[in-house]
Amino acid sequence: MKCELISVGTELLVGDTLNTNVQFLSRELSLLGIRVYFHTTVGDNPKRLEEAIRIAFNRSDLIITTGGLGPTQDDLTKEVVADIFKRKLIQDEKTKEDLMEYFANREFTMTPNNLKQTLVPENAEILFNPCGTAPGILLKEQGRMIIMLPGPPREMTRVFEESVVPILKQDDNQLVISRYYNLSDIGESVAEDRLLDLIDTQVNPTIATYAKMGEVLIRITANGNDENEINALLDHYEAIMLSRFEEHIFTFSKESLQETVCKLLLEKNISLATAESCTGGLIASQLTEYPGISRVFGTGLVTYSNEAKINLLGVKKETLEKYGAVSFETATEMCENLQRVSKAMLSISVTGIAGPDGGMEEKPVGLVYIGVCFDGITNIYHYHFNGDRKIVQQKTANKVFHLIRKTIVDKN
Amino acid sequence: MKCELISVGTELLVGDTLNTNVQFLSRELSLLGIRVYFHTTVGDNPKRLEEAIRIAFNRSDLIITTGGLGPTQDDLTKEVVADIFKRKLIQDEKTKEDLMEYFANREFTMTPNNLKQTLVPENAEILFNPCGTAPGILLKEQGRMIIMLPGPPREMTRVFEESVVPILKQDDNQLVISRYYNLSDIGESVAEDRLLDLIDTQVNPTIATYAKMGEVLIRITANGNDENEINALLDHYEAIMLSRFEEHIFTFSKESLQETVCKLLLEKNISLATAESCTGGLIASQLTEYPGISRVFGTGLVTYSNEAKINLLGVKKETLEKYGAVSFETATEMCENLQRVSKAMLSISVTGIAGPDGGMEEKPVGLVYIGVCFDGITNIYHYHFNGDRKIVQQKTANKVFHLIRKTIVDKN
Repeated sequence: MKCELISVGTELLVGDTLNTNVQFLSRELSLLGIRVYFHTTVGDNPKRLEEAIRIAFNRSDLIITTGGLGPTQDDLTKEVVADIFKRKLIQDEKTKEDLMEYFANREFTMTPNNLKQTLVPENAEILFNPCGTAPGILLKEQGRMIIMLPGPPREMTRVFEESVVPILKQDDNQLVISRYYNLSDIGESVAEDRLLDLIDTQVNPTIATYAKMGEVLIRITANGNDENEINALLDHYEAIMLSRFEEHIFTFSKESLQETVCKLLLEKNISLATAESCTGGLIASQLTEYPGISRVFGTGLVTYSNEAKINLLGVKKETLEKYGAVSFETATEMCENLQRVSKAMLSISVTGIAGPDGGMEEKPVGLVYIGVCFDGITNIYHYHFNGDRKIVQQKTANKVFHLIRKTIVDKN
Repeated sequence: MKCELISVGTELLVGDTLNTNVQFLSRELSLLGIRVYFHTTVGDNPKRLEEAIRIAFNRSDLIITTGGLGPTQDDLTKEVVADIFKRKLIQDEKTKEDLMEYFANREFTMTPNNLKQTLVPENAEILFNPCGTAPGILLKEQGRMIIMLPGPPREMTRVFEESVVPILKQDDNQLVISRYYNLSDIGESVAEDRLLDLIDTQVNPTIATYAKMGEVLIRITANGNDENEINALLDHYEAIMLSRFEEHIFTFSKESLQETVCKLLLEKNISLATAESCTGGLIASQLTEYPGISRVFGTGLVTYSNEAKINLLGVKKETLEKYGAVSFETATEMCENLQRVSKAMLSISVTGIAGPDGGMEEKPVGLVYIGVCFDGITNIYHYHFNGDRKIVQQKTANKVFHLIRKTIVDKN
């Protein structure tokens, strides 16, 4: 099935809005085995919108539009589509009820222009919008399908997942199953290199890698008609993934390294404390993004200055003078004293030079010491990270989460 | 001038890459007074790329492509364009020299396929790429312009800013000047509402608002032939902005609230300390993103648990028991004790319920107390923020930066 996406909205053409909808839809459609050949964006202009739809209709089997379904005069996607295919717009009673209920639940007053959203082309299928006022609409025409979705990403994704995916799956009859392997402490190019033999010859399953700072997510997607056969195929590839990446796989899902580590700490009931210098609270703030983490994470220190290292952590003045704030010795004292102060089972210290200033020949920007104290044993790691200030901070935080996980897993 | 953007790359059609290039180009072009009417994305497929270029050539005066200029077999934008307009590809000696130098500087070995990047259509203008190997290319054809830019955003933006903007400005002869007003502590819809009379009737200047969490950036762009006339027009609008938003404008640039506050602290040499509960280090980590902030920010505490509040900050056990961790009294003690411990001139305390758990009827999720102690005076503010955990944390951090700025500005 050849698919084309049409995004409608002048805000996209003047650069006010980043078009995240097309990325979401492209990824989800390719997971379903549907090929997207074109993306087109047009403004809220009936002539140019008509032109875009006509071109798409001539070359694609499935057209998905986003945007232009709202209550204002600017919103004219369904009007233009109805006009092209000579369908009348009629009021849909069910949609009107849903709309009334939507406003009743929110205690907003419904302005009359909202009723425009209850008009749909005749012989269309309505795709319920659980979190907005404009429903999606599906039309079949000359063996092709035109699906119109609302523009706001939150609404679009819900309508797509709840109403469009089942229709497309049913239409296709093919089963598609994906498995995920999320890796830390490895670069995307290294990961890809280890997969080149599989990527170069891929047919079914297909293999894709997605890089996020500090993580590489591998997706393996297979399709077929029989669930057992697909899973057998995926099992074969899973064995390969484990043999090539075992020490790097931190989860078999899209879950982030930070979430995985927080879950692990809670599961094992391991209390944690942090003392951060160059990361300045980034590690603490990533920990506290996780709901319920307060059960194991009570104390975080940002000892950015030498005074704070001395006063809050009891780092010796002589250590700072003799070895410097960024040193094996300072990282060790920070970590061990933190353990004493906080009484946490696992304590982490970070001291480094995030830049752009402060680097020297023997201690360049990007040099970072990380201390991990667990079960009475302190390990100090040091790294040299490339990149600007923010990237050095982020890479350090990622490394810390990797080390926390490794420390706990190795121990158990 | 009617413009159309064509993005080339299969990675966009399968959703592996978010297309930030089109947003950047759309925004910059609209600032130059050039109207973008269509965005099209195609994969690395010569037939469909040709189709997209032919369609664009029939309806636009300026076509800008991104992607498909690299060294591999997949990269075929300039081959397809040369073919459509019957131009031979010839080797450009200057580009070859640049390429050799690029590799020499990086001590990489140049693989032979890189030489593909030195081939350009005859009678084309080369747009030097200062941070990559594939230059941009400009062709004029039948009164229209086709500009091909490399795909990696960092390279694309540099080539666009350094080589394309001067050409487009020269071609246009119009002067375009923008002014910015960055607002905090106001929602986008409220800001827009106060501007509706101007937005509804806008011709020259044009007014746009961009919302970021906690900030609303207003851009006013005027064009004309005379710099003084344009500035006089903008002065008139500036007076309106000041009268409507004065207390909210924190900077007359695109600079963020966090950057503005860090600059202000450094300029006034005001030392700062933070004690965070529900934001868990987010404020400290936003402060330490700013290079050089260590001069004024030495101590940050994440006192997530009651024990940490007692041990690190000396909050009284009775206070926590009687009033709770999220209370006026706890915020006050946290803030005043922090001032004593840290010796900072300005100290900030934050305690609240970020959720999703921990809310009660009298203390719901989103309730946050912020303490600001400056020059011997402590002020406690409380808010009720809506949103999920991450949003409550981010809104709290934004409010803190707003309060820091307000406290310092009001004092001076």
